[in-house]
Amino acid sequence: MNYCPFCQISLSDAYFYENRYFFATYNISPILPGHSLVIPKRHVVRLADLSEAEAHEVVPFVIKVNRILSELFKTQDFDISIQDGIAAGQTVMHLHIHIIPRILGDLPNAGDWYDLLYNDDKNVIDSAMRPKLSKEKLNNITLRLKNTSQKIFND
Amino acid sequence: MNYCPFCQISLSDAYFYENRYFFATYNISPILPGHSLVIPKRHVVRLADLSEAEAHEVVPFVIKVNRILSELFKTQDFDISIQDGIAAGQTVMHLHIHIIPRILGDLPNAGDWYDLLYNDDKNVIDSAMRPKLSKEKLNNITLRLKNTSQKIFND
Repeated sequence: MNYCPFCQISLSDAYFYENRYFFATYNISPILPGHSLVIPKRHVVRLADLSEAEAHEVVPFVIKVNRILSELFKTQDFDISIQDGIAAGQTVMHLHIHIIPRILGDLPNAGDWYDLLYNDDKNVIDSAMRPKLSKEKLNNITLRLKNTSQKIFND
Repeated sequence: MNYCPFCQISLSDAYFYENRYFFATYNISPILPGHSLVIPKRHVVRLADLSEAEAHEVVPFVIKVNRILSELFKTQDFDISIQDGIAAGQTVMHLHIHIIPRILGDLPNAGDWYDLLYNDDKNVIDSAMRPKLSKEKLNNITLRLKNTSQKIFND
């Protein structure tokens, strides 16, 4: 298998919540505070490649991740998006679900998040515009989210 | 309960695929050919309002809908999007999942679909730019999708 950045995360402890099939990780270049990804632990490329068990568990897992993010980012509103396939804008060929907490007025136009996301995936937005989080900051927020998940789910 | 356009569809036969919990309907103002919606039959406002059974079944249902759309719209690539909450751009307060078949080069910028979607939900795009399908056209495409689903799933 070629190098896959999401398989690398899966093998690390750089995620804040997990179950048997999925993990949730904070986006290293969040387009808005709280921007996270839900990713299958298996190297699954497309939505239709999920096993029956994985397909059943993905939305219950997303709902739990939203509860964790709600607690820390003080909103219950989310844009949830899958780019399933190259023509749909998928660039990392390991299925991932974007979860973007939203607050009224957070962007000049509410729909701007997608352009940010899309341009980011193309690496059009350079690091001066939206820098990657430092390893320290990413670790810090991952730890806070982990603690929050333990507080909520007691597991 | 106030008038809900999606509950109206649920009570009609204006959808092309269904199971116990969900139905799939063609968008009356598609932003691209094949633009469809997956909607819970119950009047559920938010993703977190899904029952455990519904939450388990939503992605398996979406995968089946994608297979139907693939057959008729000749692509396996999809943007899948949920606007969960007002700050995320939700305007119809009955949970719905947008499924948008994508083909390379279908829009000047691949990310334009979201602006189209968002502006449509705000009714900013007027009918001259993207007219609603006539009842006849909508019925026709619904019937073709129904036939396709029966061919694929034999149910």
